[in-house]
Amino acid sequence: MPEFEIGPTRADEDEAILAMTVEAGVFNQKENSTVRELLDGYYEGPEISGYNFLSCREDGRLLGYACYGPRELSSNGYDLYWICASIHARNKGVGRALMRSVEEEIAKRNGVWVVIETSDTDHYAPARRLYERCGYALSMYLPDFYCDGDGLCTFTRRVR
Amino acid sequence: MPEFEIGPTRADEDEAILAMTVEAGVFNQKENSTVRELLDGYYEGPEISGYNFLSCREDGRLLGYACYGPRELSSNGYDLYWICASIHARNKGVGRALMRSVEEEIAKRNGVWVVIETSDTDHYAPARRLYERCGYALSMYLPDFYCDGDGLCTFTRRVR
Repeated sequence: MPEFEIGPTRADEDEAILAMTVEAGVFNQKENSTVRELLDGYYEGPEISGYNFLSCREDGRLLGYACYGPRELSSNGYDLYWICASIHARNKGVGRALMRSVEEEIAKRNGVWVVIETSDTDHYAPARRLYERCGYALSMYLPDFYCDGDGLCTFTRRVR
Repeated sequence: MPEFEIGPTRADEDEAILAMTVEAGVFNQKENSTVRELLDGYYEGPEISGYNFLSCREDGRLLGYACYGPRELSSNGYDLYWICASIHARNKGVGRALMRSVEEEIAKRNGVWVVIETSDTDHYAPARRLYERCGYALSMYLPDFYCDGDGLCTFTRRVR
């Protein structure tokens, strides 16, 4: 595994995160603006918004990020809201390294479950493969959930 | 089936709904105050809050209520947030009648899935039995999700 530096996202990284999200070409405009909202919540304070960000860097350069947070009315459940790797750092293990760091953070907080909701469309096939490679189980599948032809896949992993 | 009158909750029914919720003896204080928040959202406007309430009445008297709404970022998924029948109207089919009305409302809006998240504790066994009797499948089960010893059961039903 390469030597990534993974830690809390810094205040000066928001532009790089938004640029990387658009550049990934996976997310639509509504999704891109959701990342802006998640970041705003993180900068306001993760304890208030429930949004935590981790950045993955190599030689100081941002290679990817992840956003996760506690599920409301639950003390053991956490959602992974977002994970994204730079298109310039494919197949380097950025996604996997970020997943492991998110799980470590959740385990530190005594959490039990990581939940990932994603789409069943071809577009998200690489993301689903990442989750499966990282040991996540497809715990629920609801076809046509988001809209006709776009179903919900819920992946989960128990961390303690 | 008895002749229930089921329709949108009226502005003068909030006190009866809150009293019924406390009287049910199933919900804790935090859950009871959640119902107040859901009602406030409904009275502000279901289109803004996403919270819709239906009341079930017999001879003008409130026998039960249900709260449901569209899932964010989804056009076909709906959550049933709450369903409650008066302890004075047990085994009369109030819960089942409310479930059917919620499904009809969701089908009218061209929704596809009804999702119900509930607990695996003994306390909620009657609720789980109601969902199963009404044709819901246990689509996901995550033990210890809410807290150690209190797991998440996700029931779903496809309405079109």
